[in-house]
Amino acid sequence: MNRLERALEELRRRKIGQGMVLKPQNIYYLTGFYPTSFAVLLLGKETKLLVSPMDERLAFRCEVEVEVVRNFRRRLRRIESRRVGVEKSYASCEFYERYLRGRQVVSLGFLEEMRMVKDREELRRIKSAVRVAEEVMGGVAERLEEAESERELAAWAEYLLRRKAGSAFEVIVASGRNSAVPHHTPGEGLDTASVIIDLGARVEHYASDITRTFSLNKAEGFDELYEAVLEAQKAAIGRCVAGAAARDVDLAAREVLREYRLEEYILHSTGHGIGLEVHEAPRLSGESDLILREGMVVTVEPGVYREIGVRVEDMVLIGKRPKLLTSFGK
Amino acid sequence: MNRLERALEELRRRKIGQGMVLKPQNIYYLTGFYPTSFAVLLLGKETKLLVSPMDERLAFRCEVEVEVVRNFRRRLRRIESRRVGVEKSYASCEFYERYLRGRQVVSLGFLEEMRMVKDREELRRIKSAVRVAEEVMGGVAERLEEAESERELAAWAEYLLRRKAGSAFEVIVASGRNSAVPHHTPGEGLDTASVIIDLGARVEHYASDITRTFSLNKAEGFDELYEAVLEAQKAAIGRCVAGAAARDVDLAAREVLREYRLEEYILHSTGHGIGLEVHEAPRLSGESDLILREGMVVTVEPGVYREIGVRVEDMVLIGKRPKLLTSFGK
Repeated sequence: MNRLERALEELRRRKIGQGMVLKPQNIYYLTGFYPTSFAVLLLGKETKLLVSPMDERLAFRCEVEVEVVRNFRRRLRRIESRRVGVEKSYASCEFYERYLRGRQVVSLGFLEEMRMVKDREELRRIKSAVRVAEEVMGGVAERLEEAESERELAAWAEYLLRRKAGSAFEVIVASGRNSAVPHHTPGEGLDTASVIIDLGARVEHYASDITRTFSLNKAEGFDELYEAVLEAQKAAIGRCVAGAAARDVDLAAREVLREYRLEEYILHSTGHGIGLEVHEAPRLSGESDLILREGMVVTVEPGVYREIGVRVEDMVLIGKRPKLLTSFGK
Repeated sequence: MNRLERALEELRRRKIGQGMVLKPQNIYYLTGFYPTSFAVLLLGKETKLLVSPMDERLAFRCEVEVEVVRNFRRRLRRIESRRVGVEKSYASCEFYERYLRGRQVVSLGFLEEMRMVKDREELRRIKSAVRVAEEVMGGVAERLEEAESERELAAWAEYLLRRKAGSAFEVIVASGRNSAVPHHTPGEGLDTASVIIDLGARVEHYASDITRTFSLNKAEGFDELYEAVLEAQKAAIGRCVAGAAARDVDLAAREVLREYRLEEYILHSTGHGIGLEVHEAPRLSGESDLILREGMVVTVEPGVYREIGVRVEDMVLIGKRPKLLTSFGK
């Protein structure tokens, strides 16, 4: 059974008359076509992809019937099912009011669950995206000494990523005190005493995500923080095995950082699934109750944010044993 | 009255007990702080910004009281108002089910309306973003002959944009047959017979957006298409005056293209407002019933997509007369 058939099977099982898929990543996953404008994949009673005229010439790659729609409002109001499935975390309140009011609306969350376990082709693309990201990390490391600013270094990283493939998200270059801010926007100046570089490539729609913290002229306390984070990461990676709880990966990292009395400097959970989206299920957080399965791909990225910040992020394929996909500098 | 006070006044006028603003651009517009993680600006009964620990160190720039929230679910359930305002096109069905069920939910669409007319400081930033985009367009034009592929040229444009400022959206480089696809993703090869370059800078959160179509060795029919598009654009820009209907800008462009028998090759409306978002109100489309006002900033970008495509996009400040903000090559 291919993905589309599996999704249709799920719909029948859940007695959903009509699914309306809006999220481009889910549409791509099920049809092989990645819409560039508003599009709706109908699943169930009607199964076809509705695209705008903007996408007419691109949609020939699509594995389901395509209908070009000039007026989505009119078209979507023709849908009759009483029980409709949508991606509740993606569809807006406006969409709900226009098309779903008075119907029984249920979640299509199973699509995100389907995407958690990667098949061979998906792994091939993820590995390609990893190779590009690691090459670029090398290019950035080389330029560290001569770069004139965080911003220039980030711009260079984006150039290298996009020349080869695509950039999965805005590159983060956070140096000195800025490294203590997990979502710092690259700015003027570059303090090479501690520099966090967080970047990812995109290859055929699949993403990679890797972080390294460099220090040319060691900031005070850098080595101690770095060692603690590395040890936390190692412990967390050790739990990335099929059958383990996602929560335990997070807890393993926290436990190590607690031993180093660094727990209060943790600002985010330990990692996340990655694939068509940079952040997707499963989350590796203390609140997750998900069990890891073979074929999931996650990042493991403990970080501490004090006067300076240190974060190290690698990608791991879940199996009987954890398989590290990234290896830059390791 | 500052923006926040005006928004609070609107809430009172509409008898909205509690506004919940989620869209980062709207939060920034009202508070001066641009969240990098999930955040909620409460307006009305309670007026404060709820941020995650990730944003704690950044939020000191905020003009309203800030509260760091570790558990948004618990925090948002404490909100008691019966009549709640949300950005209906932004808030998700999931958000609705978690926090809004059983309440009277109304739109905060007036925030987007407030943002349509730009003040002096906003215009300063937009003009800065225009300058960067035009410089980069120059850099790209120079490299056109030697560039090895659409992708490399787009990557170079991103580098130039990000080195100076930020990139407002993914640069489009669409050449030869690809230029007939408005949302083409830059790929291998570069056919210099016709190349659409669509790029924009971001300066202090404000965007610019400019498109030029180049032709080194003229593609067949290029001159005729180009002339028609330019004439359509000129007619459309002529309608960009305070008091005119947004719809008429679109119709003016279409009318010219109809005279050239090119109407069937139009794939998108003639333009859009621009500011904190690349696409924002007002839309310059045949369906709009909005009247243009002094201080609005729009793009005017008619395009025709045949064997090859031609699109020319400039930014215009609405006033008693149209004021062209972009001038590259004109």
